[in-house]
Order: sequence, then structure tokens, then C-alpha cells
Amino acid sequence: MPTNSLSQHLPFGENKNAEWYGKDIISVKQFNRNDLEYIFGVAHEMRGMVERVGTFDLLKGKILANLFYEPSTRTSSSFTAAMERLGGSVIPINEVKYSSVSKGESLPDTIRTLECYADVIVLRHPETGSAAIAAKAAKKPVINAGDGVGEHPTQALLDVFTIYEELGAGQVDGMTVTMLGDLKYGRTVHSLARLLSMFTNIKLNYVSPEILRMPKEVMDEIGEKKVPQAEFDTLEKVLPETDVLYVTRVQKERFEDPVDYEKVKGAYVIDPDIMKSAKQEMIVMHPLPRVGEISTDFDDDPRAAYFRQMEYGLYVRMALLAMVLGKA
Amino acid sequence: MPTNSLSQHLPFGENKNAEWYGKDIISVKQFNRNDLEYIFGVAHEMRGMVERVGTFDLLKGKILANLFYEPSTRTSSSFTAAMERLGGSVIPINEVKYSSVSKGESLPDTIRTLECYADVIVLRHPETGSAAIAAKAAKKPVINAGDGVGEHPTQALLDVFTIYEELGAGQVDGMTVTMLGDLKYGRTVHSLARLLSMFTNIKLNYVSPEILRMPKEVMDEIGEKKVPQAEFDTLEKVLPETDVLYVTRVQKERFEDPVDYEKVKGAYVIDPDIMKSAKQEMIVMHPLPRVGEISTDFDDDPRAAYFRQMEYGLYVRMALLAMVLGKA
Amino acid sequence: MPTNSLSQHLPFGENKNAEWYGKDIISVKQFNRNDLEYIFGVAHEMRGMVERVGTFDLLKGKILANLFYEPSTRTSSSFTAAMERLGGSVIPINEVKYSSVSKGESLPDTIRTLECYADVIVLRHPETGSAAIAAKAAKKPVINAGDGVGEHPTQALLDVFTIYEELGAGQVDGMTVTMLGDLKYGRTVHSLARLLSMFTNIKLNYVSPEILRMPKEVMDEIGEKKVPQAEFDTLEKVLPETDVLYVTRVQKERFEDPVDYEKVKGAYVIDPDIMKSAKQEMIVMHPLPRVGEISTDFDDDPRAAYFRQMEYGLYVRMALLAMVLGKA
Repeated sequence: MPTNSLSQHLPFGENKNAEWYGKDIISVKQFNRNDLEYIFGVAHEMRGMVERVGTFDLLKGKILANLFYEPSTRTSSSFTAAMERLGGSVIPINEVKYSSVSKGESLPDTIRTLECYADVIVLRHPETGSAAIAAKAAKKPVINAGDGVGEHPTQALLDVFTIYEELGAGQVDGMTVTMLGDLKYGRTVHSLARLLSMFTNIKLNYVSPEILRMPKEVMDEIGEKKVPQAEFDTLEKVLPETDVLYVTRVQKERFEDPVDYEKVKGAYVIDPDIMKSAKQEMIVMHPLPRVGEISTDFDDDPRAAYFRQMEYGLYVRMALLAMVLGKA
Repeated sequence: MPTNSLSQHLPFGENKNAEWYGKDIISVKQFNRNDLEYIFGVAHEMRGMVERVGTFDLLKGKILANLFYEPSTRTSSSFTAAMERLGGSVIPINEVKYSSVSKGESLPDTIRTLECYADVIVLRHPETGSAAIAAKAAKKPVINAGDGVGEHPTQALLDVFTIYEELGAGQVDGMTVTMLGDLKYGRTVHSLARLLSMFTNIKLNYVSPEILRMPKEVMDEIGEKKVPQAEFDTLEKVLPETDVLYVTRVQKERFEDPVDYEKVKGAYVIDPDIMKSAKQEMIVMHPLPRVGEISTDFDDDPRAAYFRQMEYGLYVRMALLAMVLGKA
Repeated sequence: MPTNSLSQHLPFGENKNAEWYGKDIISVKQFNRNDLEYIFGVAHEMRGMVERVGTFDLLKGKILANLFYEPSTRTSSSFTAAMERLGGSVIPINEVKYSSVSKGESLPDTIRTLECYADVIVLRHPETGSAAIAAKAAKKPVINAGDGVGEHPTQALLDVFTIYEELGAGQVDGMTVTMLGDLKYGRTVHSLARLLSMFTNIKLNYVSPEILRMPKEVMDEIGEKKVPQAEFDTLEKVLPETDVLYVTRVQKERFEDPVDYEKVKGAYVIDPDIMKSAKQEMIVMHPLPRVGEISTDFDDDPRAAYFRQMEYGLYVRMALLAMVLGKA
């Protein structure tokens, strides 16, 4: 194996004095800008290692309990791959019969059992706040892989890391980011907006149907950081100035009257024609899965960053796993 | 890696003359006291290794088929972790559609297929006797991870190993063990009582509602070994003398009349107040999951051994895997 | 580890000029006779390695996404074992909620996501043609593990490899192969017949109920290669000359009138008595699972090759994984 700084650890040594050793990753609210830059620095190093050697033994001998109370192929696979590319092992747990009211086991008991077997726990759970409950029960680090409409911090981190990598290190500052689609219910856009507000000279545009506007509480929070925000109902005016177009899905079920949905849906579909008015140096992102809101005709455009975004998710998760296990 | 006796095997060498090489682990009835002491000795060594190095390559290159016909997150995860902490790999099989009557494949055929791929098979199956059927079909070792109301030998072994580790090596002899709750249907307490009867100066107390008493056949079997047994309907009298309190769940569904359940349920809940009359040097065990029969207020008491019990399960399973694969 | 030609690769080196590097395995139609002999040569080498050392690190650091849209314990386990015996890792994906019409993600999007995490993708999918769609979307190699009534090329390859190994290298030429049972709907027999037609001096016998005869299109295709084919409705006449008896299941549901099924079913059950008229040097194969069409009384006969067949499947899959990853 090529020499590299990451792999020069003792096989079973870990730096228990490292700032992130043993910490939980529960919410984007726990990070400041320095944290983000540290995480992205490690994630960037992970990217370099994966590109050079594919897999390396930084976490050899470590075990991840990948605990999914609801299916999420994408996130589950990404954490599994992250652990495996670091030489660690995974206990896949997808079949948890969960009920907070019936005879099922409580989440804290399940967590306290799993930490007998594993070194780190990744948790996906349908109930808001469950990641914090799990972290409180566990002595070992817990990483939140989505808890209901609550948080999904690794998604938010990978979104910002995508901008960081795609548009050049440090280039998060000064970006004009346009969020498109369902901004009301989209957990990812709320977290993304919060994280972006930590950078300087950010401008945020929100393009959505009237009934799916960015919630006032999020806008107020962002506004306190003096980040300029503007709302639109069509993309037309803001696309030319956009550095990052973050597309989300507008779900038909959000509309009381299907006619209203039919009226607006066309305004939120990205295709090569619409993208003619966008810059050449910009990126289109999407948390995936998509269902028609970005035309597959656009996939081969170099600005289509949504599959690369998945790959950046791998590096962010590798970084977090290494950090909380005292290896980065 | 630190030097240690377990890892000084040739990478692919195995001791085919070892007593346990290639054996099946089907029932607690197959063990005598010497066997238990050997297993606990290896499990204790496993504990030391895990505490020092986390993971080591004793079973590197070996593959476990973890075949679960019914979900059991706890047991499945424990075997997966055991194999991974020994450097081996796992084929997780959780989706088996089983039917003994319809067009499903027979268990022997499934087993004979899986032994083409794996070196050892762990089987969880809803039907009593299925582990023995699987072992008969297989040339490779089969470990019973629970077959219906039949046996769950690794649970029984980890229960006794918990006593062995928690109260000092050799201290299984001379223990007063009080079993509480549903002693009629609880597979674990039957197996535990049988294994304990192999040790000397054991005293067994059974505390249960009238309708959930320890079955006569089990008591007769234990009685033949001259182990003193006594039955009670409340814990009060026997708690002060108890070295090991083994709690099981009293299920409402066992009672024909819900009123009867309501009358007794309070008598079978452990909390800090009740535990005031217990010794300081004793342990409370539970096979988990629990649903209210031990108050979470008691979890931080040093006598609460039920989560440590899960960890001892890991070491017992590591020991058994290493033994049947000729590596211990 | 013993020295051997396969393991003398650089840890992360791969031969990107190798003929099979990066290729997809989609259909038996993509192979010519040279390909088959190459694959069987590598698979034979894999067999030798597994028999000597069990597992080796040819694909250490490589990750397989094992993507099953429908359960198939046998095939899924076989690919998992193949990757693990080569030292690689697996992302098991069994929970995919798939729908081509509803709000599920498209197959190409799922594939493009997974190739961000993995080095090779194995796909099992209920729809014919899906493997080709996946291969088109992916930059990384895709191996078809069965797509509906379409293809299941690794099954076909392992069937021929079984003959190759069991009856001696080169002995595929000159074989009389008798296929028994449901020849109409049996995907495996169609693929097997096609592959066998690439060898010389092959003779094919088809024994089936009238309504389950080998389809004309398959027979026409085989006929063009000048392979002698003959149809029978009982096994009696052709069993004595048979080198390979390939048994498939006759499903009751194929018959409109259950009475018709009852009339014929006995004619398609293999047992020790019937096998008295077969040669001593021949083999009985079955794709498994079986449900009564081969009596378990026959399992211990040395001619019963159906469980060994599963093992040959492991070697074929190891060979293909190593080939498409540039390691063979």
C-alpha cells in the first residue's frame, strides 16, 4: 500500500484525546464553521485515498452497527461502503420490528445491547429526536442517519461538501445558492440553508409554489446571520446568477387540489433547454431519489452533480466514522 | 498486533484433532461440567483479547452463514459481531421464506447448499428439532441459535458464563440463584436450571405466579442431581439470600383472565426500592428484551448485569465459533 | 499464505488491459466457446485455491453491491461467499422497494448511485431486460443474477462447468445430455441447451409432458448448430445412454386440469430404483430448489451431483468477479 498519513496509525491505536473521539453526530446545529472545515478536510483526504487505493485499513478491526428502523437503501449502503472502504466491518440490521407502544424493546435498550457488539452505531429511525435518545443511552458514538422529520446531518454535510469540492476549496463563501421545489417539507433544504449561513457572502434564493415556501422560522434563523434571502415562484429570474441549483421534489400529495399541482409542476422540472440560461460554471444538485423533476436528458451535462453528490456522501461518512473512532 | 496465544496459528491451519473441531452445538444436554469449564475458559480468553485489541484474525478467511428463519436482531447481531471480531466473514440470510408444507425448499436441502459456500452455519428456526435436522444434513458444523420452544444453547451458556465472570471464576459453585417471573414457558430458565445443576452447592429458588410455575419435568430432572429447589409466589423471602436474580417477563397473554394478570404483575417488577433488601454482592440478570419487568431506574446500579450479559454472549459465541472451526 | 499465481498481484493493482476488465455479464449469448473455456479455466483455478486455502485476498479492498430486487437466498449467498472468499466486501441490498410505475426510483438512478460506493454490481431483478438497462447506466461492471424470465447467465455457466469438472476437463464434448421435466418454462434448460450447442458431438434429449416441451425457437436455434435433438415423453429409453441427466420441476400450476398433472407427475421423479438403468459414470443435476422430483433416497449416490453443482456455482462466480475486476 502506498504510504500515506491516514494509514500510519497503529493497528489498534486510536487517539482518545482527539477532539471528535467518541462524539455523537446528531444534528447540524452541533457544528460551527471550523468543524465544517475540519470535516471537509478529512473528507477530502478520504476522497484522495479512495481514488488512489480504493480501500485502506484505517478502521480495520472496528465494527459498525448499521441500525435501520426504516429502509433507506441509499443511506444504508453509503455507510456500509464507508466502513468497508476503511477496512472495518458492518453488522447490518434492517429488520427491526419497532414499536414505542407495543411489546417491542425500547430504543435505549436496543442501543445498549448493540454497543456490546459494535464500536459505533449508525441509526435511522422514523421518530424525531430518537437519535438524541440513542446517543444519551450509548457510551459509544452514535451517528444520526435521519430521524423522521428531524435531522439528517450527514445529508446536510455531504450537500455542503459537494459545493466545497465541485466549485473549489473555499468556494462555499460567495456562492449564490438557489433552492427549488418543495421548500416547506424538505428536511434537506432546511439543514442546507442553516449550514450555508455559516459561510460568508452567501446569497440564498428560494423558488417554490406558494404553498411550499421555506418556513418562516428557518428564514428568520438565516436572517439573523445577515444572509440575503429572496423568494420567487419561478426559476427564470434567478437561474442566470445561480452557482448552485438545489432541486427537490414537489409531491403531488402536498396539494389539496390536484389541479393546483398540474398548474405548477412544469415550473419545477429541470431539462437541458431550461439550463441554457444557466452559467457554464455552476452545478445542479438533488438529494435523490428524483422522480421526474430533473430530466434524464440532463444527466450527461457536466453541471449535473447529483450522482457525484452521492459519492461525496461516501467521503463525508468515511470522515465522520474515522473521526468519532479517534482515527482522524 | 500484540503477541498472544490465540493468534499464533497458521493463517489457514486448523487443528482437526481438537476435541470440538467440526462438532455441532445443538443442545445444552450435550455438555458436561468439563465442557462448560473449557468453553468458559476460551470465552474468558476471548474477552481479554477483545478488551485489548477489539478484533483479531483467528478466523480470518472463514465464512459464517448466519441463517435466520425468524428475526432475532439480538442473536443475529451477536453472532455476526463474534465472527467479525475474529476476523471472519458473514453471509447474512434473513429473508428465508420457509414452509414445511408448501413449495418451499426443505431445511436439509438449504443447509446442504449453504455448506457449499460457508465453513460454519448458525441456524435460527421456528420449529423444535430443526437444529438437529440441520446438523444431520450438514458435514460442516451447525450452531443452534434457537429452534422454537426447543433449545437455545448459546443463551444458556452465556447466562452461566455471566455468573462465572461476574461473581468470580469458580464461583458458579455455591450460588443461590433465584428465578423470577414466567418459569413455565421461559425456555431460558429451563436451560439455565439444567446447566446450573452441574455445579456443586447450587440452590435454586423459583418465584412465579401459580399458573407459571417451573414445569414438574424440569424440577424432577434437577432434583435427581440433589440440587435443592424451592418455590415461592413472592420474591420477598428469598431476595436477601440471592446471589443471582434471573428475571423473566410475565406476559399478559398467558392469563385467561386479565384481572389475574393485574393482580400479580406488580410482584414481578424489579426496582431500586425492592433491591434495597438484596445483597450488595449479587447480580440481576435478564435475557432481554425486557418490557417493564425491570425498572430503568435500576439500570445504573452496579448489580444490574443484564447489558453486560449481552457482552458475555459475544465472548461465548466467539469461543464456540473458534472451537468448532478447530482454532481453540 | 502459500504462493500461488492468483495472489501475486499488487494489493491494489488491476490489469485494465485484461480482456474482461470492466465488462458486464448479462447474457449467455455474449460468450463463445473460447470464453467458456477461459471462464472454466479460471473457475477451476478458484476451486483449487478454495480447496487449499479456503479464502484468499485477490479482491481485497474491492466492494460488491449485491442488489436483489427479489429474494433469492441461494444466488445471493453464492455471490456473497464468492466475494468474501476472494477477500472482498459486500454491500447487501435486499430491501429494495421497486416499482416501475409508482414513486420508486428508476433502476438506472439506483445503479448510478450504487456505483459511487461499489466496484461491481450484481443485480437480481424481476423484469426481463433490466440487467441490460443497468449495464447501460453503469460505468462499473454489472453481473446479471437473473432478470425475470430473461437470463440467468451464471446459472447456465455453473451448469456447464459442473459437467466440465465432474466428467473430466474437455469432456463437455461428446456428452449425451438428457433434460427432464418442464422444458417450456424452465429458463435454465434453455440457457444450458444454448451453451452446450457450442461444444462438439453433443446429443440432446428432451423428456417432458406434451404441454411442457422445449420451445420451438430454442430447438431451431440449437438445430442450426447441427446438434442432434430428440423429444420423448418418458425417460426410460434414453436414460441408459445419458451422461448428464438434468432434472427440473414440473409444477402442478402449469396444468389446466389437475388430473393431467396427476397422470404424468410420476414419470418425472428420480429415485434409486429408476437410476438402476443409468450408467455408473454419469451425473444427475438439478438447479434447485427441488420439491420431490428427485427422491432424497438418491442423495447419497455418487452420481447425485446437485449439491456439488452449488459449489461449482461458487467457483464460477468467483471467476467472473475476478475477471471483470481485472484480476484474472
